[in-house]
Amino acid sequence: MKYYFDNSATTRLDDEVLNEMLPYYTEYYGNASSIYKLGQKSKNKIESVRNKIAEILNTKSNEIYFTSGGSESNNLAIKGIMHANIFKGKHLITSSIEHPSVLNTCKSLEEEGFEVTYLAVDEKGIINLESLKKSIRKDTILVSVMLANNEIGTIEPIKEISNICHQNGVIFHTDAVQAIGNIKLDIKELGIDSLSLSSHKFYGPKGIGALYVRSGIKFKPLIDGGHQEREMRAGTENVPSIVGMGKALELVYSNLDDKNKYIKGLRDYFEENIKKLPNVIINGDLNNRLSSISNITIKGVDSNTLVIGLDMRDVAISNGSACQSGSALPSHVLKAIGIREDYLKSTVRISFGKYNTKEEVDYLIKSLKEVGKC
Amino acid sequence: MKYYFDNSATTRLDDEVLNEMLPYYTEYYGNASSIYKLGQKSKNKIESVRNKIAEILNTKSNEIYFTSGGSESNNLAIKGIMHANIFKGKHLITSSIEHPSVLNTCKSLEEEGFEVTYLAVDEKGIINLESLKKSIRKDTILVSVMLANNEIGTIEPIKEISNICHQNGVIFHTDAVQAIGNIKLDIKELGIDSLSLSSHKFYGPKGIGALYVRSGIKFKPLIDGGHQEREMRAGTENVPSIVGMGKALELVYSNLDDKNKYIKGLRDYFEENIKKLPNVIINGDLNNRLSSISNITIKGVDSNTLVIGLDMRDVAISNGSACQSGSALPSHVLKAIGIREDYLKSTVRISFGKYNTKEEVDYLIKSLKEVGKC
Repeated sequence: MKYYFDNSATTRLDDEVLNEMLPYYTEYYGNASSIYKLGQKSKNKIESVRNKIAEILNTKSNEIYFTSGGSESNNLAIKGIMHANIFKGKHLITSSIEHPSVLNTCKSLEEEGFEVTYLAVDEKGIINLESLKKSIRKDTILVSVMLANNEIGTIEPIKEISNICHQNGVIFHTDAVQAIGNIKLDIKELGIDSLSLSSHKFYGPKGIGALYVRSGIKFKPLIDGGHQEREMRAGTENVPSIVGMGKALELVYSNLDDKNKYIKGLRDYFEENIKKLPNVIINGDLNNRLSSISNITIKGVDSNTLVIGLDMRDVAISNGSACQSGSALPSHVLKAIGIREDYLKSTVRISFGKYNTKEEVDYLIKSLKEVGKC
Repeated sequence: MKYYFDNSATTRLDDEVLNEMLPYYTEYYGNASSIYKLGQKSKNKIESVRNKIAEILNTKSNEIYFTSGGSESNNLAIKGIMHANIFKGKHLITSSIEHPSVLNTCKSLEEEGFEVTYLAVDEKGIINLESLKKSIRKDTILVSVMLANNEIGTIEPIKEISNICHQNGVIFHTDAVQAIGNIKLDIKELGIDSLSLSSHKFYGPKGIGALYVRSGIKFKPLIDGGHQEREMRAGTENVPSIVGMGKALELVYSNLDDKNKYIKGLRDYFEENIKKLPNVIINGDLNNRLSSISNITIKGVDSNTLVIGLDMRDVAISNGSACQSGSALPSHVLKAIGIREDYLKSTVRISFGKYNTKEEVDYLIKSLKEVGKC
């Protein structure tokens, strides 16, 4: 795709990442649970990746678990913590703008008899800390609030949330799938107890992710079986993908400030040009969001028309999140921030990445004006 | 590794498989849930892989679900079916020689209040069909018996088991992770309701597998979230790995009889040479097992000594299954087939693959004689 502006859905694999992965496909193919050299080669490599990830996020390596991606990590954290702490209660708090892998996990837990409070957000997409405090009950086990939203990019007040949780003896999980790779993150400093990340959002391979769970926090496995991942996640380790994820995280955090400045430059240049147009609104928290995301409404134009019209011009953008497509329903995030009913179906997400150029953004603006008739 | 004889733990990725995967890493990186061309390219490819897998196994493509591997498939099938059919009862039957991803799933269900019957096996590793019949209760939902055992290779009487299940209105799941790629399989003809497979056991990539569930059978997702896999398995589709698994399955079934004859030739040649030795016993069902596996006891020699001694000679073999390692306990499979207590720790698995040669087997025999002092 010539003009790829859907970097929040997935990113193009970094060539350096692929090069790092290849020997683990062709040469070092041992099962990491095997005790001979070829197996130990795999084992040692995945442990070195675990160490690297722990170091980058400022946590300990025995608090990092490899999974098949962000959705599995969110399911493992939320179901795992709720099931393991049922002796304390059955209540869980989340926000109304979470990713489907959090919201549908909550729905599944409700079917089992757990109780869930869904916190409202303001027009910027931020939860109300007073509401959070008031929602905490004696039987509240867990609060799950995303670090940054995947449709509008809003960054939640994570440190304040974790403080409130810990003052009340509640565990705090955050879905950081969109945030990791876009903002610096110090798990200890932010007081996060559990965190999900997904490799393909930061130029790594699909089908691999990680879950951080602070040691001491009880959770139950989702996938039972062998002794892998300290018995918390069974299944032969996906060595090449783990290697790829480690390299991708290393690369993305190697000069994050520069990359972010570059990506924010593109996004801001785009918005400078587009916000002058009479029928365009930029949604979300303009001062406090990921520098990669722009969520815009083009009044009177159907978002499918926009996405398809741009696709015909070789431009990829998205009408909502990829995980949301297949659903005919309007975005729950846009509804939660109170976007007007008639704007819901006229809103698209444009998400920028390190491979985008200013020339591409110019073409995007031109194409958007043509298709959006603005 | 020069002499790799642990093909039941994992296999070396086929170069043709990697070549098929690469464009989906470098060029066609779209999220399969995205509606623009690049996304649809991914979507169409994974649907063509789904069709291909369904065709090879003689089932329908809407009965194939992609997962992260064999362990997830077994967990999804067994937990998913039990949870979705709880209105009927809480009883499940399995065998005592299943893979840990089945046995530990059963244990986890027992903790939830489900009841599990573990069927004994004879000295060859085969379940008793009369015992199976007698174990079925009014509230039995599911029978889960593996197609072929991963340590001794014994093939279970699948068609007879499925007949008994269906005569009694019970669902039949089989863990075919070791069997797929080694024996021909017609799901319809065998009357299988649910089946797990794992790509890295047949020269495909790690971290990807599939679950077949016959349409009409209710099961619940393990990973909730987006609309992927017809809402039964959330998470961004792992496109390159799905492509790799499809190619690997196609290749392995393209001339299976020839490959099997070749692998069986190597295994039989190995056993011809080794069985003459006074302190060697070959375990399992010698007439009814996968042609790739040889499970042998070398009396008086510790299996760790064997594995490490061979490793020093650049030969990879295994003391039990890879998913079992990390455990200090002797193999539950060997115990179940009634191997003498003092032989349990003197038993190893040698598993052959398409890349092995007769020269390699000669070296294996020589090395085994040296290390085993036989």
